Amino acid sequence: MVNGTSSPAQGAQRTVISVDAMGGDRGPAAVVAGLVDSARSDSDIAFLLHGDEAVLRPMIARHTELAGRCEIRHAARVVTMNDKPSQVMRNGEGTSMWSAIDAVKAGEAGAVVSCGNTGALMALSMIRLRKLPGVNRPAIACLWPSRNPGGFNVMLDVGADIKAEAEDFLQYATMGAAYARNGLNLKRPRVGLLNVGTEEHKGRAELKLAFDRMAAAEEAAGYEFVGFVEGGDIPSDRVDVIVTDGFTGNIALKTGEGTAKLIADLLKEAFGAGLLSKFAALLALNSLKRLQKRIDPRRVNGGVFLGLNGTVVKSHGSADATGVAAAIRLAAQLARSGFLDRLAARVASAGRAGQDAAVNGSGQQE
Amino acid sequence: MVNGTSSPAQGAQRTVISVDAMGGDRGPAAVVAGLVDSARSDSDIAFLLHGDEAVLRPMIARHTELAGRCEIRHAARVVTMNDKPSQVMRNGEGTSMWSAIDAVKAGEAGAVVSCGNTGALMALSMIRLRKLPGVNRPAIACLWPSRNPGGFNVMLDVGADIKAEAEDFLQYATMGAAYARNGLNLKRPRVGLLNVGTEEHKGRAELKLAFDRMAAAEEAAGYEFVGFVEGGDIPSDRVDVIVTDGFTGNIALKTGEGTAKLIADLLKEAFGAGLLSKFAALLALNSLKRLQKRIDPRRVNGGVFLGLNGTVVKSHGSADATGVAAAIRLAAQLARSGFLDRLAARVASAGRAGQDAAVNGSGQQE
Repeated sequence: MVNGTSSPAQGAQRTVISVDAMGGDRGPAAVVAGLVDSARSDSDIAFLLHGDEAVLRPMIARHTELAGRCEIRHAARVVTMNDKPSQVMRNGEGTSMWSAIDAVKAGEAGAVVSCGNTGALMALSMIRLRKLPGVNRPAIACLWPSRNPGGFNVMLDVGADIKAEAEDFLQYATMGAAYARNGLNLKRPRVGLLNVGTEEHKGRAELKLAFDRMAAAEEAAGYEFVGFVEGGDIPSDRVDVIVTDGFTGNIALKTGEGTAKLIADLLKEAFGAGLLSKFAALLALNSLKRLQKRIDPRRVNGGVFLGLNGTVVKSHGSADATGVAAAIRLAAQLARSGFLDRLAARVASAGRAGQDAAVNGSGQQE
Repeated sequence: MVNGTSSPAQGAQRTVISVDAMGGDRGPAAVVAGLVDSARSDSDIAFLLHGDEAVLRPMIARHTELAGRCEIRHAARVVTMNDKPSQVMRNGEGTSMWSAIDAVKAGEAGAVVSCGNTGALMALSMIRLRKLPGVNRPAIACLWPSRNPGGFNVMLDVGADIKAEAEDFLQYATMGAAYARNGLNLKRPRVGLLNVGTEEHKGRAELKLAFDRMAAAEEAAGYEFVGFVEGGDIPSDRVDVIVTDGFTGNIALKTGEGTAKLIADLLKEAFGAGLLSKFAALLALNSLKRLQKRIDPRRVNGGVFLGLNGTVVKSHGSADATGVAAAIRLAAQLARSGFLDRLAARVASAGRAGQDAAVNGSGQQE
């Protein structure tokens, strides 16, 4: 544990994370609690906190862990969960979300974290940070509990856009592989394309085209292409990165979360019924806690926006201190790894390789 | 328990189910074991069993429960899991699958059950039974463990087709509601349309069109339309029938199954580690068994093909006796309820109502 290491000399090397304090379901208190957790476990981190200064100032003052490591940037307005992205794009200036993103644009922070409205965050990130050269559709990548040694797989897009063309799938593959290399420490991630069957003749036309391009770009993008994968493979150890369009990815993500939640509730019910069961639950408390930790969505909190000139981490709207701290940890890791520059280089070279495949037409189609 | 009630007088009232004995992963022995289970628990059921007579005859003879209640129809050929649907359509005559479907076509059986190749079963069902008048795309409906009092929701399409237009979604809604009325005994099922958000302005264009038609056909189709639902609502008590295209539905189904399997395995692991945990698991055995029973995919085994002139139940390829018996129970319930005639009437009247909405253009679009 480290706390209160606030000498200016150390501060100079710190990784700065820009944090939107407002707009989450639990308000700024949960966000500040997350900063405190992060500051305790990571002595090389500092924060730019955006929101209502009158509210934030006393909250920060209460925590010595944050002394000298958290600068407040006043923003009077808040993006709510009900605001439409199109409105926020026009009138978002002066909100804490806009201000938090602009700190990354200005190079003052290595990444931005927000618990706010996903659509608005993506819209503002697009207009303020702009897309990386060569990227058509940015994507949101999430982590998914899996049977792999690291415990997680990457899936994208889980909701930035509702459709994707063949070239978009290739870009998702390239960006997802870069994320897995820097976020999960995998040298050569295995990438799969989500489909309704693993046979090459199955599925939608754009998926067959994407299959060829993803296979051709294997070397340039630095991944191993395992071909089509199915829904059951998402939590498996067959693959590290699952590529899909934002509509399908969002449905899969929420279906998985809903199923896990149902089972957890049924489990609680089962152990709550009858004295013997309650006793057993007490005895098994450690086992159950281990399991819960493994599938706890708060621990893998943080959808990363890929394909922009800046790293944006979207925390769950309902995130508590643990969830916010997880999102900040992820943001700091990506900021430190030089992830963004590497990703930009891969997108450029993989794009050329995929294009060659499209032109040569060395198709695998039936 | 009832067994051996084989007098011809009773046999005359029996519900006859046509069963494809071949093509499942576990071979005909698992299918025959399922017949035995079904015969024991349902004295009013009889079977037409299709497959290799030399193999089936001695298997049937061993079980007194099946005496006088199981007629074998010899079919020399088998559709394998690797056969392509297009090939089976051309050359499928003489297979046990073809023969099993034809018994329904000829009116000899009230429904057909097969553990074989899904694509081939759908293709053969289409050409032998033909689509119901007014149905454009038949669908596969599955049951999904849920928080509803009955314990299950219906989702369709989970893989008959990879795309769907606005009018298809309306037909799925109508057919799914009819299935929920007759299969889950719900008077006025609540129907939701799967999307990436519940706001009306979100999602693909065909979903916005479908939204209007499904709302307009509420009365004619006999359901309550709850609007858009998300992936997390699939196992919820907000809705009874979830309508989606076959691509998305298949991914959601397999993602849910994969997630449940992962958690079950982690749970086993957690209770296997350490003596105290093992002891607790023993104490909690009944609780854990109750939970397992609740989410056991074998108990809800049976995808139903909707929109054909005949009831077809697709059992999991890997189904064991319990799984096959569940599929047969479902087939018998649908055969007895007069489901097919009612469904045909609903499709006709809902189609007219949805068409009126399209013509009048009383749109909810932005």
